[in-house]
Amino acid sequence: LTQDLLDKMERLFAAADQDALLAVLDELQPYDIASILPEMSEPRQLSLLGLLPPGAAAEALEHLDYDRQYHLLDHLEERHAGPILREMSSDGVVDLLKAIHPRQARELLRLLPPDDRTQVQQMMQYPENSAGGRMAADYLAVRQDRTADQVIAHFRKVGRQVELANYVYVVDREGRLVGVTSMRDVLLAAPATLVGEIMYTKIVSVPARADQEAAARLLSQYDFVALPVVDSAGRMVGVITVDDVLDVIEEEATEDIHRLGGSQPLDQPYLQASMREMFTKRIGWLLVLFIAQSITSNILRHHEAVLEQVVALTFFIPLLIGTGGNTGSQASTLVIRAMSLGEVTLKDFAAVIWKEARLGLALGLTMAAAAYLRAKLLGGDMLLGTTVAVTVAVLVLVSAMVGAALPLVGRRLGFDPAVFSSPLVTTVVDATGLIIYMQTARMILAI
Amino acid sequence: LTQDLLDKMERLFAAADQDALLAVLDELQPYDIASILPEMSEPRQLSLLGLLPPGAAAEALEHLDYDRQYHLLDHLEERHAGPILREMSSDGVVDLLKAIHPRQARELLRLLPPDDRTQVQQMMQYPENSAGGRMAADYLAVRQDRTADQVIAHFRKVGRQVELANYVYVVDREGRLVGVTSMRDVLLAAPATLVGEIMYTKIVSVPARADQEAAARLLSQYDFVALPVVDSAGRMVGVITVDDVLDVIEEEATEDIHRLGGSQPLDQPYLQASMREMFTKRIGWLLVLFIAQSITSNILRHHEAVLEQVVALTFFIPLLIGTGGNTGSQASTLVIRAMSLGEVTLKDFAAVIWKEARLGLALGLTMAAAAYLRAKLLGGDMLLGTTVAVTVAVLVLVSAMVGAALPLVGRRLGFDPAVFSSPLVTTVVDATGLIIYMQTARMILAI
Repeated sequence: LTQDLLDKMERLFAAADQDALLAVLDELQPYDIASILPEMSEPRQLSLLGLLPPGAAAEALEHLDYDRQYHLLDHLEERHAGPILREMSSDGVVDLLKAIHPRQARELLRLLPPDDRTQVQQMMQYPENSAGGRMAADYLAVRQDRTADQVIAHFRKVGRQVELANYVYVVDREGRLVGVTSMRDVLLAAPATLVGEIMYTKIVSVPARADQEAAARLLSQYDFVALPVVDSAGRMVGVITVDDVLDVIEEEATEDIHRLGGSQPLDQPYLQASMREMFTKRIGWLLVLFIAQSITSNILRHHEAVLEQVVALTFFIPLLIGTGGNTGSQASTLVIRAMSLGEVTLKDFAAVIWKEARLGLALGLTMAAAAYLRAKLLGGDMLLGTTVAVTVAVLVLVSAMVGAALPLVGRRLGFDPAVFSSPLVTTVVDATGLIIYMQTARMILAI
Repeated sequence: LTQDLLDKMERLFAAADQDALLAVLDELQPYDIASILPEMSEPRQLSLLGLLPPGAAAEALEHLDYDRQYHLLDHLEERHAGPILREMSSDGVVDLLKAIHPRQARELLRLLPPDDRTQVQQMMQYPENSAGGRMAADYLAVRQDRTADQVIAHFRKVGRQVELANYVYVVDREGRLVGVTSMRDVLLAAPATLVGEIMYTKIVSVPARADQEAAARLLSQYDFVALPVVDSAGRMVGVITVDDVLDVIEEEATEDIHRLGGSQPLDQPYLQASMREMFTKRIGWLLVLFIAQSITSNILRHHEAVLEQVVALTFFIPLLIGTGGNTGSQASTLVIRAMSLGEVTLKDFAAVIWKEARLGLALGLTMAAAAYLRAKLLGGDMLLGTTVAVTVAVLVLVSAMVGAALPLVGRRLGFDPAVFSSPLVTTVVDATGLIIYMQTARMILAI
């Protein structure tokens, strides 16, 4: 399908049939245009962007990566690049300018009219992961003494620019947010109704300096499609829209997952990440865990005499600590995710531990039966089998509790719970497991 | 703040001042009403829902869990419950009916007018994780020969019911979707403009039987706030809105994370999940991994002679296999997440392995230096230190490659990549690590 489209467009380009080209483009969504653009030669890309109405070109451009965006804007004639940049969403421009070199950013800023330039520069002040860093400045705001009819008339003038036309924000003379109503309510109201009569005044808003994740959670709880962003004086400065929130939720999940795998979150997609970034983000935890885990060598050395007497004990070391690690990893992962979703908080500590204690007992007894069978199959005697089975039962119980407790304790100490990932839990549980194993062996084998 | 509100409402209830109560409620968002509701006594909850306009009560109710929703609807007088149920979104009703006992569902269905009942019953036919299972049936549809003015007039009549008023869907006589336009374009168009002139005909839609994840990805790529759902004949049957997609994206991330931790995904939030569910979802993988990992016992037993001669070799077993596991876990987690996001596919196999090979070499050499130091510190001789260091270097390299390869190989064989989680990778890498260690020891220590 894409190839057909490309062929068709190539024919129209060759025939210089602009009207037919525009007719084809008019039927495509911005995302579709952005998908076919990289398949074309660069001169064609530039002609195509120049041919499109600036609004459509801007929307398509925003679906490309920042390097490509800059490259195209830089290579377009200024009479095309200027209008396209002006039509881009304000948060799109801010993200682009932050992603490229400051010198390149200054060049692009020059193409904006002074008002827009000031606005963009102000927006760039907010930290990247804050609500302010994610917001767009293109929203619909009116005074409360306007009538429904006047709002519709106003929308007909400026509506093309507005990011999402669902809400009408009501501000006072100082720009402070005093109410919110929906375009739907405006349309459904009698024409002479004052905005003040149909607005909510218990406003759900987010401070510009708040974490983007807080904004995402708020928006998803309330099922809104946009959330107003206010500065410290209560003045409205922008809106966070649901498409930004979708991105935030995916990014946060990705960060959690990377941490759970035992590396620092990558900033780039896997295939794009440089060797240097990959190495830096991974070696740190590997070394920390190595140092922590090396305590296991001391524990075993401490019990050298036991191991010398019954070498068969050695055979079960990887199996035992592996089982402990798996159990701990299950518990910690379930608790970490529940904490990320706000289902489990510190006040649930006792409930979580009690749950894992009961579960750990059930899992431990089941696994102990399997372990006893396994030890018998390997031709060990009954005492060895009993040692392994008792260790498994105790270790699974302890691992489930430790795995669940670590993320909660970590949060209490101010860490991101996702840091208490499977690798870290495994490390803690390995050491615990060996102590349990050696002590059990001494008792049961009477060494 | 919530407590103040509750106190105030309690006073107004006691004074039976319905007007003042309604004035307070009118300022609250549905989510806020749903948040305070469970804090009140049950008779108060029922009075409050009866007092609210049915539309507002319905919206608040949909934020509660299904058991609570059913309980309240069941205990409300029918003259209140009926209108509230009718005002609920169609997907909200479907989800509720699916969550409760079929007998209870039949009772509730009785409260709906015949048309709504048929619609809900049809929607209930779609599988739970399909686009059809997530869609709402409350959308705005018109014929293409309507004018912009007529669409606005139509919206003023039915707009209250519509789930999201951003898009106007254009259907033909048979109900087939022939175009899409936005409410914004309708408002900005001259009053006499025909819908056919301002609609897109290259429609982005999703089949009702498609996976909900496909719908979520489509909507997030195109930055839409709703996506039309069509049946096999191309007839429009509903819309998937962005709030549903937010839920889908969070659920899918949760499932991936649970699998990464080595358990089957829980259906319930952690604290609500029953002991029985928890046990069932966790014991399976624990046993499978135990059986797989028990090969490590055979490997060690096979090298019994070596271990008897140099007991000190035993001391490093947990440290070595732990390091291999951590490296494999990093690689597999990064690749699994990249696959979930569509960044890495099967055709990238060679690129991924080559990346991990180079990285594994760099990580392995760094870790080998740390391991050599550690072995020296533990008072081992140079040969033992060399054995441990060489094993670490080789093991880290192999683990990085195996960890990255497993999810891709798994996908090729038709498995969910998230199944190739840290615990599974650790298990595979443990066995590999022991073989490398024992062989290296034989060579270097000349046993």
